Amino acid sequence: MTPNGIITLLTDFGLIDPYVGIMKGVILSISAKANIIDITHQIPPGAIAQAAMVLEESYPFFPRGSIHVAIVDPGVGTSRRAILFVTENRFFLGPDNGLLWPIISSHPNGKIIHLTEKKFFLPFISQTFHGRDIFAPVAAHLCKGVDPLKMGTIIDNPVRLSKPGIKKAEKVLVGMVTRIDNFGNLITNISERDLKEFLGPFSPIIKISDIIIKKISRTYSDVEPGELLALIGSSGFMEISVNLGRACDRLTADHNEIVGTRVEVFRGPDSVF
Amino acid sequence: MTPNGIITLLTDFGLIDPYVGIMKGVILSISAKANIIDITHQIPPGAIAQAAMVLEESYPFFPRGSIHVAIVDPGVGTSRRAILFVTENRFFLGPDNGLLWPIISSHPNGKIIHLTEKKFFLPFISQTFHGRDIFAPVAAHLCKGVDPLKMGTIIDNPVRLSKPGIKKAEKVLVGMVTRIDNFGNLITNISERDLKEFLGPFSPIIKISDIIIKKISRTYSDVEPGELLALIGSSGFMEISVNLGRACDRLTADHNEIVGTRVEVFRGPDSVF
Amino acid sequence: MTPNGIITLLTDFGLIDPYVGIMKGVILSISAKANIIDITHQIPPGAIAQAAMVLEESYPFFPRGSIHVAIVDPGVGTSRRAILFVTENRFFLGPDNGLLWPIISSHPNGKIIHLTEKKFFLPFISQTFHGRDIFAPVAAHLCKGVDPLKMGTIIDNPVRLSKPGIKKAEKVLVGMVTRIDNFGNLITNISERDLKEFLGPFSPIIKISDIIIKKISRTYSDVEPGELLALIGSSGFMEISVNLGRACDRLTADHNEIVGTRVEVFRGPDSVF
Repeated sequence: MTPNGIITLLTDFGLIDPYVGIMKGVILSISAKANIIDITHQIPPGAIAQAAMVLEESYPFFPRGSIHVAIVDPGVGTSRRAILFVTENRFFLGPDNGLLWPIISSHPNGKIIHLTEKKFFLPFISQTFHGRDIFAPVAAHLCKGVDPLKMGTIIDNPVRLSKPGIKKAEKVLVGMVTRIDNFGNLITNISERDLKEFLGPFSPIIKISDIIIKKISRTYSDVEPGELLALIGSSGFMEISVNLGRACDRLTADHNEIVGTRVEVFRGPDSVF
Repeated sequence: MTPNGIITLLTDFGLIDPYVGIMKGVILSISAKANIIDITHQIPPGAIAQAAMVLEESYPFFPRGSIHVAIVDPGVGTSRRAILFVTENRFFLGPDNGLLWPIISSHPNGKIIHLTEKKFFLPFISQTFHGRDIFAPVAAHLCKGVDPLKMGTIIDNPVRLSKPGIKKAEKVLVGMVTRIDNFGNLITNISERDLKEFLGPFSPIIKISDIIIKKISRTYSDVEPGELLALIGSSGFMEISVNLGRACDRLTADHNEIVGTRVEVFRGPDSVF
Repeated sequence: MTPNGIITLLTDFGLIDPYVGIMKGVILSISAKANIIDITHQIPPGAIAQAAMVLEESYPFFPRGSIHVAIVDPGVGTSRRAILFVTENRFFLGPDNGLLWPIISSHPNGKIIHLTEKKFFLPFISQTFHGRDIFAPVAAHLCKGVDPLKMGTIIDNPVRLSKPGIKKAEKVLVGMVTRIDNFGNLITNISERDLKEFLGPFSPIIKISDIIIKKISRTYSDVEPGELLALIGSSGFMEISVNLGRACDRLTADHNEIVGTRVEVFRGPDSVF
């Protein structure tokens, strides 16, 4: 597969420090024509699982041949490996700490390459900024057409990520809040499919904290302004929202403690879903 | 008019979520050569009037042929229309909720197209993310040269925006704070022209909260460090500022309540303007 | 030297206002092919020394021929000059307020040009936004190949910046915290070289506030999670960090008062560095 010139970046580096800009400088120094696109740089520091989820949600919207760099790397400077995952359609680069696991596990024919070939790194490798010293130059060399197999050795034991799972019991489906978005929506790990399978013909009774919601709305304005609702969000997962308001402000929990909050779905009496 | 390859984005999506990155992926999947430029993604959620103002201030600095996408869309998923406004020099895309009204109303020869042609959308349209599903792909198809008239039907009844107006009485000109910028400047809706017309040869007496300012300065350093001043800002509107400080911290109001604060201008005794 | 088409931007404009987007519009209106890369726009407002430091850390990673625009400009609208500094390999643009001094002083063969030629500015120059009216258009004209010498007159008396210095006494090396990064790391102005020269064969005793650290670690995970450490960061300066935590939260000082905090290094008893 041929790179298309696009390199996307997803990190926990933030936008205050020059770290992202520096990575772009490194890339452009090697591959002057690269088209570098930011996915986000505001993953909470060290939040590998959240980065994995955001990457999974985002990459399918980029064209075939894109190179996706994802760096949330609390173990930088340790013996954790730097890896490249090549699928039929794309390239993924990141630390081998589980970040790429959801993508690796859903592409059984992909190849995982442990990046060992130093001629594709910067000449001096720091202990703390492999985004600059390893991932940016490797992405740029890939973008120029270097064969991934020349960049290291194939491995088959990548670090796995234990995804925040949902539990399906007979009478209850239990998930959690995985992210609060810019609009205060509480995004859960309960997918539309999970919900449909569990509910069958029944209406839902959704419980989160002391909130109860009894239907799945189609869009925000299906309820009155200021009212709580549940809907299937644009990424295919159930969200708790407030029409023209912020659902995150309706929980008593501190904003920092909302991610991880338990969400329960029971079967209701009606057949309305 | 021919597109120049530039697509600008202005939204209230923030930079934490991957939404903006996803829109860019959609655009580049259709129009690989598009040059996508962010205006801002930090419009306060749902603040249509503020987005309209920022768009008006920004677009004239982009070259002829640019495509300007502006999305602040609290009514996403309702029957509100998605529209394209084509002027002699530019394209504007956004929800039909007033956001584009200031531009529409100042370009009487422009054409407003209700976007109905689904072949220019993504195959699956969510109820909550038309930035990804409608506006990004339409922008990309426009960028590739698709005729706007093939994208929908011309309409002549766009939703209007009631602009936060100024009131011109005989003895007082009343406006409001419309935005606090990164430097803490209080940007008002009183334009240089309004001010000159009202004041004539007289000096101003400007009142905001319990603050009184008696002249229009030329630049920040016309007053001592830490002193309040009023000047005509770079967008042509009167700003209340502090030399080397933050004017927003001088009002007793809570930071979130400053937008909307009344600003009054009276005629002073002198002829110094 | 020939421009390579890259223009980097480093400002204190923030990302909420449209100011950065407007600058990009101005650049692309003149030089449609410019590749504009953000370094950061979140320098604390008016923090010239911090901007100078971030620029110094970043620009070497961009390719030869890049144009680096840096604007932290509290004196905009005064008689402070707008300057272009041309070295053998690069172009730097910014206000003459010390921001470019570290780069000027380390390139004795560079040429400093006071930008006076108005035909390379926007037609109307505001008193408050020279990023838009002067620096963006000049950068774009440079990018198109205009000879720097046609843009103004050579000067040799640029404004200097008194760098937050380190003090080397016989028994102690005194520096300060210059920046808190996104991970809460406290970045100091003590370079690896300073440290090695001072310590010689001895181990360090590092004091900051009531914290004492007795070695230089190689990477974060050299200590237990939650433990404080000192290391040489990716930019070559000593940082105080916490493995999987935020060092800035370990000082009793208010977050806003940490920059400037005194850091002392003494020679320890051992020879381990």
